[in-house]
Formats: sequence, structure tokens, C-alpha cells
Amino acid sequence: MVTSPVVNTYPLSSYTFGTKEPKMEKDTSVADRLARMKVNYMKEGMRTSVEGILLVQEHNHPHILLLQIGNTFCKLPGGRLKPGENEVEGLKRKLSSKLAANSPSLQPDWQIGECVAIWWRPNFETIMYPYCPPHITKPKECKKLFIVHLSEREYFAVPKNLKLLAVPLFELYDNVQRYGPVISTIPQQLSRFQFNMIHS
Amino acid sequence: MVTSPVVNTYPLSSYTFGTKEPKMEKDTSVADRLARMKVNYMKEGMRTSVEGILLVQEHNHPHILLLQIGNTFCKLPGGRLKPGENEVEGLKRKLSSKLAANSPSLQPDWQIGECVAIWWRPNFETIMYPYCPPHITKPKECKKLFIVHLSEREYFAVPKNLKLLAVPLFELYDNVQRYGPVISTIPQQLSRFQFNMIHS
Repeated sequence: MVTSPVVNTYPLSSYTFGTKEPKMEKDTSVADRLARMKVNYMKEGMRTSVEGILLVQEHNHPHILLLQIGNTFCKLPGGRLKPGENEVEGLKRKLSSKLAANSPSLQPDWQIGECVAIWWRPNFETIMYPYCPPHITKPKECKKLFIVHLSEREYFAVPKNLKLLAVPLFELYDNVQRYGPVISTIPQQLSRFQFNMIHS
Repeated sequence: MVTSPVVNTYPLSSYTFGTKEPKMEKDTSVADRLARMKVNYMKEGMRTSVEGILLVQEHNHPHILLLQIGNTFCKLPGGRLKPGENEVEGLKRKLSSKLAANSPSLQPDWQIGECVAIWWRPNFETIMYPYCPPHITKPKECKKLFIVHLSEREYFAVPKNLKLLAVPLFELYDNVQRYGPVISTIPQQLSRFQFNMIHS
């Protein structure tokens, strides 16, 4: 038998949520974002970004923690690596920046697990692909998604300008209109895992 | 660093293709198929089916081998396990039934690799989900997709009523209309792999 990797998922209620200072987006428009990406590319080459999939359970069904900006746009916690930065260390740094209290004693125990998807941005455009398209020799960004194995209890501090939502897989699935191509296919990428639903 | 699993992919031209006797579909309509599924469920319980993702390369881009029935419908090689059958052995049996010559000395060396997706059929209907939906306690089918690591040279015998196609990932991606939800999201599920393109 080929064994499925296991993800322990604890109830949403076993986590505690507070707030912290706002983390503003660096860009106020998509055009600004792509322009800044181009400037950074000229200086540093291809951007590598890392994002975390944090799982909890409600009613025996896995839910993913998403950060909501304003009333519509949702994103996974994560961000851009510094040039040469290790991807696991960089993801821990980004998760703490987005979700941890400022006190070093209150840092969650980030356990970075399996890489579940890699997306490529061939041009300075919004469109990304789950492969580097043929004839693209200089992709502009590589984005990697990792499972983050949460401990049974954690304290998360959410920036005041963002909302943290626990979104069920059945809401993400086949919902590219609302969540975009990267987040809406996470259910397919997680299907090979066995979720160990812990009721504590 | 989290290392990506590697899949060696050889050129399509390194494989040899012949034909063999037709393998007819057991059902002539979707309604017949669902009715037969129901009869089998009553006798044997949940159906487990296994399918193989066989990869080759052309122009440095991964392609998947699909069996085409008639002019439109495509499927992965595979099929239903016998009750209690081991999934790896069952997949090898199904791959040989669909793609191997009848002579035992010409059997490909089927190396069953990683499970990349698991799909669930909650009811005797065509719709499947990449999770078992909440409140479904008795799913009717569980379908598992595995990578099949091919050797550098193989001989495939394709049933005369089917065509074997090598379809590039970029053709499958975002093409649910043509390939359906299971096959069209294989590019996302393979994105975490590193393809080692071998030019022999």
C-alpha cells in the first residue's frame, strides 16, 4: 500500500486570536504591484515567494486559514523570500510577521511540512501556471505552497486591517471566481492527505 | 530546504507502440454505468478504483498518456480493484490489461510511485469531489491517482478501439470542459514534482 501522509487538525476553538498593528499592503493597485515586481527583478532576479496552508477542523471537515483584505480579496499567509534566504526559515519569518504576536515568547511553533504546489509567473502579469510554460527561460516568480502543521494550541495575532477566516475545503473547491486559481485548487492538492480530526 | 520528488521523463520517441484486441467499455451509457455501480455496491460495498499517470516529455514539457475513446472522451489507464485487492498490485494488473502486450515476456516494468490525488463519489452520480463531503458517511467510490515511473524503453500495446495520446500539461490545465475535473487538475497536482527531462 502507498500510505497517505497525515495532517492532524484541531478544532478552530482550540486556537486563540488577538490583534496587532496593521500590516499594510505595499502596493495600492495591481499595476503598482507589477511595476514594483519589475524593479525588484532587475535588482535581484526571479522572486521566490512562500505561503503556508494552516489547517483546522470544524464539523469534521478541514478548513484553511485565509487572510482577508477588505471585503473580498483573500490570501494565504506568506510572502517574498529575501535573496538567498532558506525557504523554510523564510516562511517561518513571514508567518510570524503576519500571524504572531510581537513578543518572542508568544511565537507559534511553526512546523513547515510538505510542499503541495509550485506556481510560476512567466511575465510581469497576474497570470500564473502550475508549470513553467514551454519557451519561458526566465520566469519572474516562483511561488511555493507548504502545509504548516499546527500544534494543538496557539495564539495568533492578526493585523488590525486584516481578517483571519477559516474557510472549508468545500467552499474553496471549484470556486475560482472568488478565490483565484491558486487557492481554489488547494482541495485537489490536499486530497492525497489523510486528515486526522482531533476533537479536544 | 524541502526537496521536490523527482520524476524522470523520457522522450515519447523512446517508447514503441503496437495494437492488441479491442477492450470494450462495459457500459454503453452513463446511466448504465451508474446502474451497474449500484448493483456492485450492494454486493461489494464502496468501489475503489486506481489510475496511473504515465509521463513522457516532448519539447522539454511533460506530457501525460491518455486513452481516447471515440473522438472526444479521454481517460487515464486504470480501473476498479477487486474486493480486498492491494492497490499497487491492482493498478499494475489494470495497466497491463490496458497497455501491455499479451505475452508475459513483454510486460512493462510498472513502477507505481506517489499518490497524487484522491477523489470521492458521494452518490450514484457522475460528480466527484477531492474530499469526502461533510455528512457523507457512505461514499460510493474512492478513486486514487498514482504516478507511474516509466523506464527508458517500453513496448505498449494499445487496444484497437482506443487511441493513446500524449497530452501536454499546458493543454490539460484549466480545460475542465474537455478533460473533466479529475484530469484537468493533474497539472496542479504535479506542480510539486521536479521533472528530470532526459534526452536519449
